[in-house]
Amino acid sequence: MGNTNDHPLLALIRNRVSAESFEPGRTLDDETVRDLVRDAIEAPSSFNIQHWRFVAVRDPEDKQVLKQAAYGQQQVEDAAVTFIVLGDLRGLDKLPQTLDRAVEQGVLPRPKADAWLDSAREIYADESMARDEAIRSCSLAAMTMMLAAEARGLAAGALVGFDPVAVKRRFDIDDRYLPVMLLAVGYPCSVHESRKPRLPLDEVLAFDRGREF
Amino acid sequence: MGNTNDHPLLALIRNRVSAESFEPGRTLDDETVRDLVRDAIEAPSSFNIQHWRFVAVRDPEDKQVLKQAAYGQQQVEDAAVTFIVLGDLRGLDKLPQTLDRAVEQGVLPRPKADAWLDSAREIYADESMARDEAIRSCSLAAMTMMLAAEARGLAAGALVGFDPVAVKRRFDIDDRYLPVMLLAVGYPCSVHESRKPRLPLDEVLAFDRGREF
Repeated sequence: MGNTNDHPLLALIRNRVSAESFEPGRTLDDETVRDLVRDAIEAPSSFNIQHWRFVAVRDPEDKQVLKQAAYGQQQVEDAAVTFIVLGDLRGLDKLPQTLDRAVEQGVLPRPKADAWLDSAREIYADESMARDEAIRSCSLAAMTMMLAAEARGLAAGALVGFDPVAVKRRFDIDDRYLPVMLLAVGYPCSVHESRKPRLPLDEVLAFDRGREF
Repeated sequence: MGNTNDHPLLALIRNRVSAESFEPGRTLDDETVRDLVRDAIEAPSSFNIQHWRFVAVRDPEDKQVLKQAAYGQQQVEDAAVTFIVLGDLRGLDKLPQTLDRAVEQGVLPRPKADAWLDSAREIYADESMARDEAIRSCSLAAMTMMLAAEARGLAAGALVGFDPVAVKRRFDIDDRYLPVMLLAVGYPCSVHESRKPRLPLDEVLAFDRGREF
């Protein structure tokens, strides 16, 4: 407990690389795409709002269009699927229904559900708080999907360099959804990519109090 | 490949619960805290900037102070360690050094490092882009730590309901660091917490084009 280092996940975390290339021409079927999203949405979410939405882009012409909106990054096209990960800026709208479901399933007492709804409405009435949370929740889900993809024998890479306005326009995405990142998933290329060195621990971790890192 | 469902990580993802209670009074030693941060910083990061910083709060009085800043949420105090996860709003400052290290280690060619630096400076000169990326990177690292904690026999829970101004003041955190979330980690309580239902897949996933979800 606490010091075990042998869970296969820990090796997977240490060996994961952001994929910049994929075996081109390989496809993923609908059910595998759904499995990846099922994995992703197991991430935690503030008040269980679940701001995350996913547009799965697999059509070769669509991937070319998406690549252009991502300043030509080739992995968008080579990936079997590139997800547009969207954060719902009006995540609160669905919350009453989501909480009702949890109450009906017996996993959330009604008074706690009511308190969550009140708190969530108070906090996320602030548009900037709602936007921050959309980015946070989508990122938690994206990380979960990247690790799950590795566990499924796939490779994944997140991209934040893209034109969100072009992405929304070309893929019929309403302004209520914020494109948080693109997530390219596919079959790993046999070329092994190098892992980039992480900052030394003393440059990122402090005990007890903050400091200049 | 692609359809394997038997990696232990996938079960871990499906069974993970955001811990709201911990076995109180149990502690984690420095090395375990370091291990958790080592896991977290294996997450991907835009241009390898690594905006994430962690303040590990373990002292009982400090945890009480942090709990107050988190509106009394008890898990902040009961956790063996509660991390203040900080995003460096001036993440670019360290990037030349970080890229040099990668070049010296032979994992990044110099021309690519130079191109990354130019691109990163162009993109993150915009303060709102830098702030968004700090939230994204910290969230990716936090998700990695939550899963790693589970793999180590621990439990974890993220909290976003706290007063960032109070947290910064009480824990000597400079304004260049944005408190992105608190992350409580400790020994799981024997009380099993219920997992909250996720949205049905057709309410979060679209193929090819966006729509009203």
